[in-house]
Amino acid sequence: MSTYVAPVEEMRFVLDELAEMETLSSLPGYEEATTDLVDAILEEAGKFASGVLDPINASGDREGAKLENGVVRAASGFADAYQQFVEGGWNGICMEPDFGGQGLPAVLGTTVQEMWAASNMAFELCPLLSKGAMELLSEHASDDLKSAYLPKMVSGEWTGTMNLTEPQAGSDLAQVKTRAVRDGDTYRITGQKIFITWGEHDMAENIVHLVLARLPDAPPGIKGVSLFLVPKFMVNEDGSLGDRNDLRCVSLEHKLGINASPTCVMSFGDDGGATGYLVGQENAGIACMFTMMNSARLSVGLEGVAMAERAYQRARDYAKERVQSPVLGSGDSAPAPIIRHADVRRMLLTMKAQTEASRALSYFVSSRQDVARRHPDAETRQAAGALVALLTPVAKAWSSDIGIDVANTGVQVHGGMGFIEETGAAQHLRDVRITAIYEGTNGIQANDLIGRKVARENGVTIKALIARMRELDGDLAKAPEQVATMRNNLSRGISALEKATDWLLATYASEPARAAAGSVPYLRLTGIVVGGWLMARAALAAAERLANGDGNPAFMQGKIATARFFADTYLPEAEGLVEIAATGGAMAVDIAEDLF
Amino acid sequence: MSTYVAPVEEMRFVLDELAEMETLSSLPGYEEATTDLVDAILEEAGKFASGVLDPINASGDREGAKLENGVVRAASGFADAYQQFVEGGWNGICMEPDFGGQGLPAVLGTTVQEMWAASNMAFELCPLLSKGAMELLSEHASDDLKSAYLPKMVSGEWTGTMNLTEPQAGSDLAQVKTRAVRDGDTYRITGQKIFITWGEHDMAENIVHLVLARLPDAPPGIKGVSLFLVPKFMVNEDGSLGDRNDLRCVSLEHKLGINASPTCVMSFGDDGGATGYLVGQENAGIACMFTMMNSARLSVGLEGVAMAERAYQRARDYAKERVQSPVLGSGDSAPAPIIRHADVRRMLLTMKAQTEASRALSYFVSSRQDVARRHPDAETRQAAGALVALLTPVAKAWSSDIGIDVANTGVQVHGGMGFIEETGAAQHLRDVRITAIYEGTNGIQANDLIGRKVARENGVTIKALIARMRELDGDLAKAPEQVATMRNNLSRGISALEKATDWLLATYASEPARAAAGSVPYLRLTGIVVGGWLMARAALAAAERLANGDGNPAFMQGKIATARFFADTYLPEAEGLVEIAATGGAMAVDIAEDLF
Repeated sequence: MSTYVAPVEEMRFVLDELAEMETLSSLPGYEEATTDLVDAILEEAGKFASGVLDPINASGDREGAKLENGVVRAASGFADAYQQFVEGGWNGICMEPDFGGQGLPAVLGTTVQEMWAASNMAFELCPLLSKGAMELLSEHASDDLKSAYLPKMVSGEWTGTMNLTEPQAGSDLAQVKTRAVRDGDTYRITGQKIFITWGEHDMAENIVHLVLARLPDAPPGIKGVSLFLVPKFMVNEDGSLGDRNDLRCVSLEHKLGINASPTCVMSFGDDGGATGYLVGQENAGIACMFTMMNSARLSVGLEGVAMAERAYQRARDYAKERVQSPVLGSGDSAPAPIIRHADVRRMLLTMKAQTEASRALSYFVSSRQDVARRHPDAETRQAAGALVALLTPVAKAWSSDIGIDVANTGVQVHGGMGFIEETGAAQHLRDVRITAIYEGTNGIQANDLIGRKVARENGVTIKALIARMRELDGDLAKAPEQVATMRNNLSRGISALEKATDWLLATYASEPARAAAGSVPYLRLTGIVVGGWLMARAALAAAERLANGDGNPAFMQGKIATARFFADTYLPEAEGLVEIAATGGAMAVDIAEDLF
Repeated sequence: MSTYVAPVEEMRFVLDELAEMETLSSLPGYEEATTDLVDAILEEAGKFASGVLDPINASGDREGAKLENGVVRAASGFADAYQQFVEGGWNGICMEPDFGGQGLPAVLGTTVQEMWAASNMAFELCPLLSKGAMELLSEHASDDLKSAYLPKMVSGEWTGTMNLTEPQAGSDLAQVKTRAVRDGDTYRITGQKIFITWGEHDMAENIVHLVLARLPDAPPGIKGVSLFLVPKFMVNEDGSLGDRNDLRCVSLEHKLGINASPTCVMSFGDDGGATGYLVGQENAGIACMFTMMNSARLSVGLEGVAMAERAYQRARDYAKERVQSPVLGSGDSAPAPIIRHADVRRMLLTMKAQTEASRALSYFVSSRQDVARRHPDAETRQAAGALVALLTPVAKAWSSDIGIDVANTGVQVHGGMGFIEETGAAQHLRDVRITAIYEGTNGIQANDLIGRKVARENGVTIKALIARMRELDGDLAKAPEQVATMRNNLSRGISALEKATDWLLATYASEPARAAAGSVPYLRLTGIVVGGWLMARAALAAAERLANGDGNPAFMQGKIATARFFADTYLPEAEGLVEIAATGGAMAVDIAEDLF
């Protein structure tokens, strides 16, 4: 089994050319993010990923987390690795300096988070949830709660969770039944939550649960749900840990993958009620939770990118080693490494192109978050924020679908060995499969895209993006032939997205169910076209660097070839997807239920 | 968890309308396959699948097969189920009456085999391998070997295996190193084989291994490989079992799925050589093995169909039960069963359409096998045989890809529960994943399709099929509007296949690697168009039955809706696939190896 190696050259290229790192580091508060610092962080993070997290990935999968006498023990080596993670200061690199963070740009956090996820996705889920919890508290909690909890969370000494789901309340949080009863300044929380990632473990001193619950006098439905901070251990005035709160993990799920990440059934208030602190206003919990969910959605899309990268690296290395059959048409009868066989190369290039396109999208969106937060101009901030909102469901769903597809292809490149667990390729597929489900299934992302993000504002942001994407044609026309050749397919793709958007806007108002039935193909179309546009931008930048003798020529050639392959093999789907979105959906809605 | 129920109404419809069962039962030797007998067999097989095989499917997955002191023990209940399978006479229903078989049409065997695979794929693999071994011996073995082995194999008392793969010889059987040394009338076999499905177990008295090995004076490569029958227990003159032969299972693989099916590392000749009997001629083993491999390829494609059906049934049942969120645009604020949500319906209809299209292809090909075997007219036999040869790699690869895709969608329909092993949806995905790999990876199927099946005969058979598919347009034009509406997309699909075939024929001769890099998209295109054609034929037949008041109207309406959905959502891919095959392949071949 090969070791994951962080693709630092590629990451740096995407940061510079698509995330516009130089512009970001000129934004107020980001001045420290110099080229040298970014280089140093990427290098150190890469070492940590390969040296500490990767070695316990396969063993963590085999061993899993264990619940014994109410204690959840992380798999061997995890607690130790987490300790090193905290000591290395990795947990707070993008958090506010006020609470001990380094305040670096979000996109840099995204980059190193990709390394954590690629080297050990089960491990990475713990800081992923903590990050969402910190962002939520930072935005919505009282100053008292912030000063009591954030410093220890930013350092990583305490971790965070997201307690939303109940057996009857999965995608539909309006059905939350967990109860919260006022008790002086605090609340007593009682109920059961399921699917709580890293809900209990032995890697940190304390765990800060963010819990959705309902007050006795709350209105029914989604507008009666409040959010509470419920710590595992009570925190004394002086910051030391007090009594154990009334909550426990009652069982762990037996899952397809991410076995080293404990997925807990949590019980609150078995002995009278767990102490909780209100975050935000009563009955306004969902809006608070959305801060966390949007952060987590981008993180989950990034897990798709990360697992795609890992699966690609392993398949490529195997294909270089494994010798089997002569190459068709080569005139040489000796068996060759399978990377020389045309279909294996097609699979590898497919994996590479999808990985790079999804990374381009992830970093691009993340960089727009930084602009939305820090740009001095209000209009620029607003436009960037709207673009982030539009593309968050795409980054989540399209990238996680890519992660699954690439991991699946990775199994295929290994042939029979891919089906054998010891090879490791199957674990990638098992692990990444959850990314299309959690933090809102990909169907829910598509629904969010067409409703809240496109139809509600009558397509303003997506139309602006379409116009911006069209502008690239002029640059492509002036580029060398090998880059200019992408013009036709990109232009057809953009037109297809425009046509589909017109269909969507016309349909959503009068026949929302029909629009919803076409939402998944519409999201895929958006991903392919925006991904194709970003890859074309990358190819342009690579061609310019080649011409200027700037950077590694082999890398630049590879980037151009991969972008062309993406344009040749994904953009041709676009026109079909318009039809699929518009017509297939109708049939799905019209068919009588008893014909299924 | 719901129980698998064989879709007898659908199976019967496909047999009658696409496999032309009535015509088949008029062929010499098939006269017994009357409507009543077919009905009785489907009904009994359905009961056996639901009542005996389905109940041990999940437990078999959890428990797996175990190797203890050289003995492989099947999971609990498997030996008992196999005994019932043998007693029910299921093993030999399509085998020659001379050796105790029932001599029924192959397509009927295909139909019941789908039920075995859907109810318990790990179990079904045992008779699947036995079937291939019987067909091989029937065609290539000496009369002595046939009479000594076939009766017990046909009854199912003995099972069969396929010993091809060695660590260095996977897809490339030219690299086989297992040695065979002449020793009087028999041979001494020495070597190690891997990935041997049901290579050792405790469900039958004896196991008949078919083993590829190389004689000391054999020419190098594929033309120096011979085939041997190597029994686990020697067989005495009187048919009783004699000594244990010199072979053993030395370990079992730890796999992603089909855990109840032991995948064995087999060692032959540790104590001086296992006794083997030559099958066919020396150094002509590969040709013999191809009989078995072609049978097994159709069976593996059928496993894709079967697992798709199982995954569809479970997702549909879950979607009817699971209540979550109000229906968009319904005006009703109460949470509804998720089957009423547009995107869930789209997923279910996608699953249903893919399942039915792949079943249509499987049964169609299988029925052409019957024509190729039994038709009195030599030219008809020859044409049917060529069609079977052309479509075997498509049925294997396209249907197994569908099985994986549908199982993956089935996990998605379940949301978070899909990732929990107890739900069962994840097992489908784990089990079916192997079907794209074994019996020749799907890449190898695509290579077989473009080379041996299309280019070698300059496209004669596929062009004949294209011409035949075009003829349906006249019938569709006369059909009711809801069926006639498929004309445009089917016609575009057929034109796309024709265009891609022209590209393939032009490219294969001069640039075979480039053609090979486009082979997988070409195979997918072929599957979609042939599947679309068969679905349109099914819709026509259903419309006619509706008009005549023949059969269940709800079933016929469902068939028409599913066919239209297939035409609306899969055929639009066809034009893009022509481009993808032709242009993407070029880039995959041209890119320098060190750019990966």
